Amino acid sequence: MPNSSKAIGIFDSGLGGLTVLSQVTKRLPNETIIYLGDTARVPYGTKSADTVVRYARSCASLLLSRGIKLLIVACNTASAYALETLRSELDIPVVGVIQPGATAVAARTKTRRVGVIGTAGTVASGAYVREIHAIDAEIQVYSKACPLFVPLAEEGWTDGDVPRTVATEYLKELTTYDIDALVLGCTHYPLLKRVIADIMGDGVALVDSAETTADTVSRLLAGSPNVKANGAHYHFMVSDAPESFARVGKRFLGHDIDHVEWVDF
Amino acid sequence: MPNSSKAIGIFDSGLGGLTVLSQVTKRLPNETIIYLGDTARVPYGTKSADTVVRYARSCASLLLSRGIKLLIVACNTASAYALETLRSELDIPVVGVIQPGATAVAARTKTRRVGVIGTAGTVASGAYVREIHAIDAEIQVYSKACPLFVPLAEEGWTDGDVPRTVATEYLKELTTYDIDALVLGCTHYPLLKRVIADIMGDGVALVDSAETTADTVSRLLAGSPNVKANGAHYHFMVSDAPESFARVGKRFLGHDIDHVEWVDF
Repeated sequence: MPNSSKAIGIFDSGLGGLTVLSQVTKRLPNETIIYLGDTARVPYGTKSADTVVRYARSCASLLLSRGIKLLIVACNTASAYALETLRSELDIPVVGVIQPGATAVAARTKTRRVGVIGTAGTVASGAYVREIHAIDAEIQVYSKACPLFVPLAEEGWTDGDVPRTVATEYLKELTTYDIDALVLGCTHYPLLKRVIADIMGDGVALVDSAETTADTVSRLLAGSPNVKANGAHYHFMVSDAPESFARVGKRFLGHDIDHVEWVDF
Repeated sequence: MPNSSKAIGIFDSGLGGLTVLSQVTKRLPNETIIYLGDTARVPYGTKSADTVVRYARSCASLLLSRGIKLLIVACNTASAYALETLRSELDIPVVGVIQPGATAVAARTKTRRVGVIGTAGTVASGAYVREIHAIDAEIQVYSKACPLFVPLAEEGWTDGDVPRTVATEYLKELTTYDIDALVLGCTHYPLLKRVIADIMGDGVALVDSAETTADTVSRLLAGSPNVKANGAHYHFMVSDAPESFARVGKRFLGHDIDHVEWVDF
């Protein structure tokens, strides 16, 4: 049983994991949360499995050194490549975003034909296909890597000709498979939701794993919630450019980020 | 005077610097060259000055530990942010790509109106503007950051609707300034040369710094060329995914890359 007075640790390669943090605080409003964005080594999605495992390990051990009771791997690529390693090496619960995303899409589909979009690493790992098939082996899964979606979202190009042309190119094949649900398998992709929804059409539900991941965390901590009743506490750490994290992160969270610690690890 | 028997060291955040290596071997066919691509931490162009300086330092010290007589910083962002630091800390000659690029574009323009495109970091540093003005303070310089060009080139999207739409969006303002020369201020950009040339039109010369950088190196080593006469020797090192470096690097060099060493630093 996790020690209730300790914090929840969350890491992502950058900002995207703040969507998960946001959902966690809705369900667990009294927890202390330490968020780490590895902005010096972002992106993870284009790197090899070995390198992503190495980076994930160093993020986890930094968070552990700050005293956490549970670790959320809020990055899809790190969840795809490093979750088993982290679970075998750490003695606290480790929650990834892929199994919750798979659960959400399996619950959503009626036709049992679904799509998954993600980084090159996430798609190459086959992690979503495995997790979806562990729930229902009859579901047809069509996957597509969309490497340019992360730089597009980071550039702030979430509407207009450029994202529309890029998304049309990536998604044109998926639109022919008659799917009724699509996993946004990267924490950056919800920023492109409108463009993706337009191309995929009304018949395709877009699923992201932030909510189901937060449900999983909430369940794991159900027996030992944090007892202090003075609201959530946050601590933010990044490996590069704390000012820009604070500025852009505000958009994700809907409120100011007071202080961001720069860490070298 | 550099010790002629030692190697020339080149580093870049990834593959792009191979265009510089290629030009150097044309001029100095008997040199040993050690190339380091920091593929685990690529890209540099979106990171802060502090982080880029830190990464450049670690690349330089790895190359020094292998015994080099001269260091080429083949990455524009690293040249923009870290060249002065490296020059002050190292006791071998350090050559960047910005001053050679500035020399080339200043030599090329007749109207004295030029453009510079590069990463967010390179453009924010103002390094090209400074170097061009050091040559001719009357030259009008128009700069534009094109962050999506690196992921486009890495995705292999160098022709067709997507690069055309992206490039049109980035370059539309530059086409109104009546420039006659444009610096491709990032080693990835020559891969998008055709699309950029189409948009900028025949009246704009595209300048990259690989050739002028190699000229500078050749001049610096003029007094002490390598004496062995059995052709160039290469050694390649990367911090991630050696196989993919060997595969893609072949396209840059025009010949096979036999062996790529993985380094953790």
